[in-house]
Amino acid sequence: MKRSALSQLGLRTAEPPISWLMAAALEKPGLISLAAGFTDNPSLPVTQTREIVSSMLRGKAGQSPLQYGTTAGDEKLRTITARRLAKMDGQATKARAYQPGRMLITHGSQQLLYILTEILFDPGDIMLVEDPSYFVYLGIMQSHGIRGRGIRMEADGIDLAHLEKTLEALKVAGELQRLKALYLVSYHSNPTGITTAVAKKAGALKLLRRYEKAAGHPIYLLEDAAYRELRFADEDTSSALTMDRGSKRVIYTSTYSKPFATGVRIGYGLLPEPLLAAALRVKGNHDFGTTNLLQQLITQALTSGAYEKHVQMLRKRYAKKASAMVAAIQRHIPEDVKWAQPAGGLYVWARMPTRVKTDLNSKLFKAAMRQKMIYVPGNLCYADDPTRRKPNREMRLSFGSASIRNIEEGIARLGRALKRVM
Amino acid sequence: MKRSALSQLGLRTAEPPISWLMAAALEKPGLISLAAGFTDNPSLPVTQTREIVSSMLRGKAGQSPLQYGTTAGDEKLRTITARRLAKMDGQATKARAYQPGRMLITHGSQQLLYILTEILFDPGDIMLVEDPSYFVYLGIMQSHGIRGRGIRMEADGIDLAHLEKTLEALKVAGELQRLKALYLVSYHSNPTGITTAVAKKAGALKLLRRYEKAAGHPIYLLEDAAYRELRFADEDTSSALTMDRGSKRVIYTSTYSKPFATGVRIGYGLLPEPLLAAALRVKGNHDFGTTNLLQQLITQALTSGAYEKHVQMLRKRYAKKASAMVAAIQRHIPEDVKWAQPAGGLYVWARMPTRVKTDLNSKLFKAAMRQKMIYVPGNLCYADDPTRRKPNREMRLSFGSASIRNIEEGIARLGRALKRVM
Repeated sequence: MKRSALSQLGLRTAEPPISWLMAAALEKPGLISLAAGFTDNPSLPVTQTREIVSSMLRGKAGQSPLQYGTTAGDEKLRTITARRLAKMDGQATKARAYQPGRMLITHGSQQLLYILTEILFDPGDIMLVEDPSYFVYLGIMQSHGIRGRGIRMEADGIDLAHLEKTLEALKVAGELQRLKALYLVSYHSNPTGITTAVAKKAGALKLLRRYEKAAGHPIYLLEDAAYRELRFADEDTSSALTMDRGSKRVIYTSTYSKPFATGVRIGYGLLPEPLLAAALRVKGNHDFGTTNLLQQLITQALTSGAYEKHVQMLRKRYAKKASAMVAAIQRHIPEDVKWAQPAGGLYVWARMPTRVKTDLNSKLFKAAMRQKMIYVPGNLCYADDPTRRKPNREMRLSFGSASIRNIEEGIARLGRALKRVM
Repeated sequence: MKRSALSQLGLRTAEPPISWLMAAALEKPGLISLAAGFTDNPSLPVTQTREIVSSMLRGKAGQSPLQYGTTAGDEKLRTITARRLAKMDGQATKARAYQPGRMLITHGSQQLLYILTEILFDPGDIMLVEDPSYFVYLGIMQSHGIRGRGIRMEADGIDLAHLEKTLEALKVAGELQRLKALYLVSYHSNPTGITTAVAKKAGALKLLRRYEKAAGHPIYLLEDAAYRELRFADEDTSSALTMDRGSKRVIYTSTYSKPFATGVRIGYGLLPEPLLAAALRVKGNHDFGTTNLLQQLITQALTSGAYEKHVQMLRKRYAKKASAMVAAIQRHIPEDVKWAQPAGGLYVWARMPTRVKTDLNSKLFKAAMRQKMIYVPGNLCYADDPTRRKPNREMRLSFGSASIRNIEEGIARLGRALKRVM
């Protein structure tokens, strides 16, 4: 047979580079992975989940968790979630942006990001992303033939001047009509740990609005708040939903999986029309709606208080693990490596001195492998943006799944690898 | 704003007509729906699931069901499932087609059908489907801009002569290179209840092979065996995997959701390379892999024997409900309405006399609504195939979710509606 029968998407979709890292971690005994984005195993809510499921699955009321539900998701869960968000944002529950009817529940927020991509982007369309951004989302973009444009980062989020410059350049090039959205991982970002300042969200929305006329269609702000609840320092800040036109131009996505249990794949989002109608139809085609059992489990965890208690515990736990990583970095990593203290999330982002590369083929990565530790090379977190070269001297270090002991030992090993190559 | 920002897929994806039927069922009190494809509520394995989850979620072993798994799915579940299939097909477990490494676990087989569509079809590509076929899959095709060609049905599956004629016509029209697959709901089909004879699967594979050269790429047989385990009469028959080139050209999909619990969304498939690699990548982008908790629940149900016991019970239950529907039809429905006794699945397919239409705007549908009963109009189960008119005098009647009492009363109401219009 001369050709394959695969579609353009089938042919285009690349193997995620991270799967190589995952496989390496499994194959090399004694290897410490600070690459995985898994959450902490010992803190998983085993007992709480058992108790909730046991009480749910009784008598006639126990039938509904095992039956199909609706495509949009469990009504109670949507209502509770919308109210929680309004409260977190300091808004009235009756505010337009927080109506449960605008909410869609998915198998993890990843599935929602996927569906949003499907309904917004044709091959060749453009997405603005943080530089660097969430690499699994970059994989979805690659798969759908979406062109990425990276927006430079500052300590409190995207550089608005660079956003404006990029929008202007797209306008001049006549490509603004291909631009559909700006994607921000706005709380304790994967991979940088950066939280976008409220003023920057407002500034970004204003800029997008200014270019909508030339685009000829709405330009959305996709706010991915997956790590919002994993905050262990500072105060919570408002989402972009609170802002002018928040209910019209902001797509807010988040998840219960990371703060409760990664194996319980429940994500959610608040969507403006007409995206909601289109997303619902596509969600119906994907799977008719999210597993009822998991939705009702989360609903019960929320109403019983088990969820809130678990999140409080998790925050303390991750705070401790983050501190352990920070202390180990201070002890083992040379001073000319730059990094920032995380206030939440699962990651420390570190920048090596100019001459030290970090990619999978670099001397440093190989030296780290010899020391039996791995990290996520920073270049994997940059979109394929032809207007700049991908930086290649950064790395993502995760304190999510490794034990404190392994975090300390892993960083010590990284320190030894660095000394070899510097 | 002049235009919407939606993609071609976002704009194209239509509201499924069935959602109107679902909404009607919810809004009209006292309405009996023989339209829904839901399964039987009272027989859901509430106690079994509670016991399995309670025993799973204990101690350190209780952590893995709550953590991320692998993209392909739980290894134990894949191994057990592959072995079960080999056994059902009367093949050695070491046979190439049944290797667990060829298996992918998804959130229901629906998600697998979706992913397969993504990796095989570009807009404008062609899928051959049974005439009539599974209407949710027809919706996926519509969403992806896939052109359908309906293959006429006989009592034991597709009409091979018509398949050949269709292939030849595509060849003559120079469109064979757009043809990617033939989709068969091969056991107790949704909507017709027809099981495809083994000889017809072999014949179809042979015909597809003959046209591959002109197509320039493989043409796959997508065998959707979702209802295979819901057989309550006759003997099980072999899947197309048993046939010559079965491991190379047959995509086999099925599900544990319908035979165990519809709310537990676990589907699976055996895929030939290179489809498997592409499907895995896309599955990773969708959701990283299927919820571990549900996979391990099914694994436990399988190894403990609870699954097999439940399926045996379900078969007897559906046999009884099918008999009740058949008896009610014999009592209340005029003799010139044609239908066949089901040997499995959830549906009876009925054909009205020539002059009686069944679509949503028909006199019969309106009369049925006035009698407070609904069915699925047959025309919704036909692909948009410009080479023939959609038949409009059939209906799908489901005995899945309604009680025996409601099945009897629902058919009696349909009988009264028919008498009004005939």
